[in-house]
Amino acid sequence: MSTLFLRTLREDPADAEVPSHKLLARGGYVRRVAPGVHSWLPLGKLVLENVASVIREEMSRIGGQEVLLPALVSREYYEASGRWTEYGDSVFRVADRKGAEYLLGPTHEELFTQLVKGEYSSYKDFPVILYQVQEKFRDEARPRAGILRGREFHMKDAYSFDIDDEGLRRSYELHRDAYVRMFDRLGLRYVIVSAMSGAMGGSASEEFLAETPTGEDTFVRSTGSDYAANVEAVRTPAPPARPIEGLPEAQAHHTPETPTIETLVDFLNDAGLGRTFTAADTLKNVLVKIRQPGEDEWEIVGIGVPGDRDVDMKRLEAAMEPAEVALLEDEDFEAHPFLVKGYVGPNALLRNKLRYLADPRVVEGTRWATGADQADHHVVDLVCGRDFVPDGVIDVADVRDGDPSPEDEGTLYTARGIEIGHVFQLGRKYTDAFELDALGPDGKPKRITMGSYGIGVSRVVAAIVEQSHDDKGIVWPRVVAPADVHVIGTGKGDQVEVALRVAGELEALGIRVLVDDRRNVSPGVKFTDAELLGVPTSVIVGKGLDQGVLEVRDRASGEREEIALDGAVERVAAIVRGD
Amino acid sequence: MSTLFLRTLREDPADAEVPSHKLLARGGYVRRVAPGVHSWLPLGKLVLENVASVIREEMSRIGGQEVLLPALVSREYYEASGRWTEYGDSVFRVADRKGAEYLLGPTHEELFTQLVKGEYSSYKDFPVILYQVQEKFRDEARPRAGILRGREFHMKDAYSFDIDDEGLRRSYELHRDAYVRMFDRLGLRYVIVSAMSGAMGGSASEEFLAETPTGEDTFVRSTGSDYAANVEAVRTPAPPARPIEGLPEAQAHHTPETPTIETLVDFLNDAGLGRTFTAADTLKNVLVKIRQPGEDEWEIVGIGVPGDRDVDMKRLEAAMEPAEVALLEDEDFEAHPFLVKGYVGPNALLRNKLRYLADPRVVEGTRWATGADQADHHVVDLVCGRDFVPDGVIDVADVRDGDPSPEDEGTLYTARGIEIGHVFQLGRKYTDAFELDALGPDGKPKRITMGSYGIGVSRVVAAIVEQSHDDKGIVWPRVVAPADVHVIGTGKGDQVEVALRVAGELEALGIRVLVDDRRNVSPGVKFTDAELLGVPTSVIVGKGLDQGVLEVRDRASGEREEIALDGAVERVAAIVRGD
Repeated sequence: MSTLFLRTLREDPADAEVPSHKLLARGGYVRRVAPGVHSWLPLGKLVLENVASVIREEMSRIGGQEVLLPALVSREYYEASGRWTEYGDSVFRVADRKGAEYLLGPTHEELFTQLVKGEYSSYKDFPVILYQVQEKFRDEARPRAGILRGREFHMKDAYSFDIDDEGLRRSYELHRDAYVRMFDRLGLRYVIVSAMSGAMGGSASEEFLAETPTGEDTFVRSTGSDYAANVEAVRTPAPPARPIEGLPEAQAHHTPETPTIETLVDFLNDAGLGRTFTAADTLKNVLVKIRQPGEDEWEIVGIGVPGDRDVDMKRLEAAMEPAEVALLEDEDFEAHPFLVKGYVGPNALLRNKLRYLADPRVVEGTRWATGADQADHHVVDLVCGRDFVPDGVIDVADVRDGDPSPEDEGTLYTARGIEIGHVFQLGRKYTDAFELDALGPDGKPKRITMGSYGIGVSRVVAAIVEQSHDDKGIVWPRVVAPADVHVIGTGKGDQVEVALRVAGELEALGIRVLVDDRRNVSPGVKFTDAELLGVPTSVIVGKGLDQGVLEVRDRASGEREEIALDGAVERVAAIVRGD
Repeated sequence: MSTLFLRTLREDPADAEVPSHKLLARGGYVRRVAPGVHSWLPLGKLVLENVASVIREEMSRIGGQEVLLPALVSREYYEASGRWTEYGDSVFRVADRKGAEYLLGPTHEELFTQLVKGEYSSYKDFPVILYQVQEKFRDEARPRAGILRGREFHMKDAYSFDIDDEGLRRSYELHRDAYVRMFDRLGLRYVIVSAMSGAMGGSASEEFLAETPTGEDTFVRSTGSDYAANVEAVRTPAPPARPIEGLPEAQAHHTPETPTIETLVDFLNDAGLGRTFTAADTLKNVLVKIRQPGEDEWEIVGIGVPGDRDVDMKRLEAAMEPAEVALLEDEDFEAHPFLVKGYVGPNALLRNKLRYLADPRVVEGTRWATGADQADHHVVDLVCGRDFVPDGVIDVADVRDGDPSPEDEGTLYTARGIEIGHVFQLGRKYTDAFELDALGPDGKPKRITMGSYGIGVSRVVAAIVEQSHDDKGIVWPRVVAPADVHVIGTGKGDQVEVALRVAGELEALGIRVLVDDRRNVSPGVKFTDAELLGVPTSVIVGKGLDQGVLEVRDRASGEREEIALDGAVERVAAIVRGD
């Protein structure tokens, strides 16, 4: 540490909000150089490599072959898949001196598909799993939380290519199992959630979320089972349809000054209609507009949800992807005078050929209080299946603690996590775009099917810190720690010399050592730094040296043990090896 | 090889001109995806990592600490050093969604200077050597020769920071010695040449050039010593000044239709002037214009060289850097009527306050036939130091085989090489730009001085192939080879099984093995592939198996040896270890 390029900080960086950001900066692991762009300092580089090594080992174990593709990807590849347009301004685009356009690869499905097409042509060549560990680039709108959500970040991306769906399922399971092994080895607490596909297109998809209260991703769990899902992926169970017969006719009411659900419910309960209304008895119609990639025109869509819920924009965006979604503006209402703000009902939309999609709870036979498409008027007992028929179902209402679990008898509750991995049965989106076929045993071409599997390597570093720290600093799991042992020489006498000797002997045994050989630095500062840096085991060569005694500290438990200088190296080695 | 993501090619790629490009493509090591942009396939990735490992080991040995900086570098950093403008269109520039500008780092002096400034502040902190191994980006005008000159490529860049010039010299020597060790270990034949600095600014600078006839860089060697230099760095010895006294007066002559040196010499020799003229007796005045970075205005400069030589544009550009250089256009002559095309002499320039720079051979007392600044007129016996005095010396005439060596009694001859490394005493250009100071022992700030040291990692891979191949394929030095041993099972019986067993036993000894376990592939194809791939040692499990005999082939020498199956693994291991 007398020559290590490291200066720890006593204060949190001003812009740091989450523990990993604070501690990785204070511990001199990373430095920010631009929004969402960081440098990795020597200890940080070691940690990053340690994480990558675990990932490589497990990828290799399932037969993954490591390659390295460029960051610069020509426009033509993304044009072929449609993503040149879809990505919008979420990627970095570059033009070369001749005007040829590239983007800085945020993920490499296109290039991998093309690569395999260039080499392989027979069914006998498949399956194949290829992966790389590489910098990726995304022009995040709000880079935040240090390396948790960067714009230039490290990722392992893997791709499987199979001859048929059964093969894809096998490759998917191989990766899922490999991810379980990786994240277990990395000491992470995580859940595996069903996920939506995002801009990728495709079918089966699961995310690995590291559980932490600071996580950006909200997910839901069930009290009744291990069920866990991304909020975007929660499927609301539809109640059974009810008989329509015998339900009262729909009646319009003059309901002055009731533009909100709350005012409406109050009005209805004061109106002497013979029953009590709650917000859940009302149908809230939210108007949005969507625009397909590459299109100029927006389409207005009405979304009906029970009045006690809001539309969850994240769920809505996921449901509409790859289309863009926006709320209606005043000029949209002006352009469509049949849309009476605050009093929109399903029928104005349906009659005017605008799409009307409804929450899964809006089943046949349910009756609703909702807008009457006339200012200051609502209609009561509007029955689904009788008085209106939605154009389809859309499951985008907010999910709440206590909602029924879709897979068991329990109820849902929300938790937060960091997406650290994603496994995804892409299917044939990219192999169709690039016409990647293999000649089958029957001599006929067979379209290849594909999976993609990502891990945010730099994000995993941050996730580990989020889960594994205390108020003094980081508590690294040994497998990713920048060293196994932090040897600290504290005194002004022989202590530093002995510390260096012990460190050398430990290194000779293959143990990774960080040695604090700084002179003119107080023991207190050295201990504080050691706790901040978070190496699992510290060996202190201090006051006890005169009595031939060293101290071993365990960073995680805080336990201290005195050991004799004689045989100290063997004792420490045994601790490191877990003997 | 039955599952390896590898398909060798029998034909050279259409665009491949140099052996490394042909063989790395045919051997399935790399694939081109855009001009100057490549993917590394599994065997290529291994070779690349092997080269990087040697580099890392030697960097670590001199105390280099590995970090990892981003590819995206904010405009502000390059603005501070002036390189945002200097780079022109030789870099890739990117704007993010908010319009903030970045470039894709072609080299990282700025960011490293800023990084050190952020952490270090006392003279006690120095020296420090930091390095990274990373993708770099340059928008080459003419990407060519496969990975020899790419636009996205792998580089190790190191930077030293020292408190004083003596420290910088020490850091420079450490790197120079480390480079010698690296390139020796990598089995390269190379020379170390004095180099100009390019756009970097600074003083002492040497390049490591791998000698190969396909190299892009021309350099000169001496018949009299080990002297080697970049053409840009050759210093032409100036002859001693001669007495002016007694030289004849300058005389202007009507020399109709003599706009070229050749026509002029013929004319003079036919003119009965009492002596024989050669081209070397004439003074050719070449007019160029230069523009400093960020300036709008061009400056016209006259350059005088002996008439038997041309101005070497590469030497001129290097001498003028960072200014841009262009030849004069017709409109420039029109704007300056005193410049009489084909008949320009030194005095029209000097009288009109345009700079006139002359070749080192134009010393006091030399007399010249040159333009008389009047159409169809030349002047003879124009004496330097009497009739004109250049504004300075410029050493940009072409260098020729047979020119005197500047450092010994020999003569120069040209050779070609590939620049694989560059060591460079940058000095304080960047530390001045970023005001990187350390508090000295006297409490006063001291400006840090800096070195930069680059190695083209991917280019080294290509340089090795350029130097180490034959007509059958690549001949890898063991340290970079994708495997130590290529075990080939050729027959249809037990051969493949035995090959797999032998391979497994070798791997258990820590030997890196590639095993050809393909069935239904002929022995001929397997041998051809093995020679193309270039693993140093092959073990063939073939026809001899029935007699308990394997064959060992040495790729470099072509030598073959029969060994008994019994004890084969130990024998092969001994060969690999060089026993």
